[in-house]
Amino acid sequence: MEYPSTIIKELIDQFVKLPGIGKRTALRMVLSLIKFPEEDTQKLGELISNLKTKIKHCKKCNTICDDDYCMICSDRSRDNESVCVVQEHRDLMAIESTGQYRGLYHVLGGLINPLDGIGPSELSIGSLISRVENEKIKEVIFAINATLEGDTTIYYISKELKEKNVKTSVISRGISIGTELEFADEITLGRSIANRTDYQI
Amino acid sequence: MEYPSTIIKELIDQFVKLPGIGKRTALRMVLSLIKFPEEDTQKLGELISNLKTKIKHCKKCNTICDDDYCMICSDRSRDNESVCVVQEHRDLMAIESTGQYRGLYHVLGGLINPLDGIGPSELSIGSLISRVENEKIKEVIFAINATLEGDTTIYYISKELKEKNVKTSVISRGISIGTELEFADEITLGRSIANRTDYQI
Repeated sequence: MEYPSTIIKELIDQFVKLPGIGKRTALRMVLSLIKFPEEDTQKLGELISNLKTKIKHCKKCNTICDDDYCMICSDRSRDNESVCVVQEHRDLMAIESTGQYRGLYHVLGGLINPLDGIGPSELSIGSLISRVENEKIKEVIFAINATLEGDTTIYYISKELKEKNVKTSVISRGISIGTELEFADEITLGRSIANRTDYQI
Repeated sequence: MEYPSTIIKELIDQFVKLPGIGKRTALRMVLSLIKFPEEDTQKLGELISNLKTKIKHCKKCNTICDDDYCMICSDRSRDNESVCVVQEHRDLMAIESTGQYRGLYHVLGGLINPLDGIGPSELSIGSLISRVENEKIKEVIFAINATLEGDTTIYYISKELKEKNVKTSVISRGISIGTELEFADEITLGRSIANRTDYQI
């Protein structure tokens, strides 16, 4: 595609680095930005420029926040004896939106992936171990994707926590609520049979 | 959705103003921006901030460009006796990518739409009429969406051009190449029968 202006080409080159944005969507976005009022493009530009310097990570759980500590870690009404370990901030948001969990979190910032050069030291695993040692945590719940990298990460952290006198658990995997069995994939269906739970009236 | 930080909320509020970007996509974009190197967010921010001041419109055809005149209007090898009238810059790009047209363009910047308060004076219709008067243009081709607003705009401009001794034409509408008749919508199919062309061996 030939672009009519260098600033448009440069903007598209930046936008396509974002997830789910291809060249066509990027072009639509840029052509639409041109029609924005100048104060809107100014504001958006400033927000993006300042993003990296303004954004903070909670000193306790590593989640994104405005201050030193996030809203969840600062909330005294939450159960501070359990920590739910997630890969990214969006997983935390997904769990929060269920309203089923009242404990604390710990955001790893990624998963162990030797092929991409991500080892335990690249993730906030050390601070999780310190929290377990210093904060009287009774349970560590892993809410991590059921992938090779996810399983490796869970295994690694569990091994590190083995001698720490803390319970570890993994969120249940199985057939989604409302899914018809015939459409479930074999691995999930297999796991959900192996991990069946008692049913009592 | 509850956002963990005000800068994230503000950024999402700006991103959702773009076409095709919902709250979820905006959140994914922002969380991904946080992981960008700082020089990339700085660059993207600056590009957006400066967009409105840096972008220029061709003094002749009103398309987006870097200088006073766009690459197409400056290209002496193009046929300067025909002008293709389009609504937006992206329509120009779509026609250019076909490689079937070697003339000039004129970008209206919108379509006549009284309900949205867009009259002829909001669009670059006046400059089109002047071009026809001053540039020895022999044909004006309308490549404009087949909608109520498009048809109104074509009708208005054609009327203005009536006494100017210039040929006017509209791109053909009909069944898309490769489309099966049974799946074509009735209006298009009806038009394509009414506008049938001779077929000769």
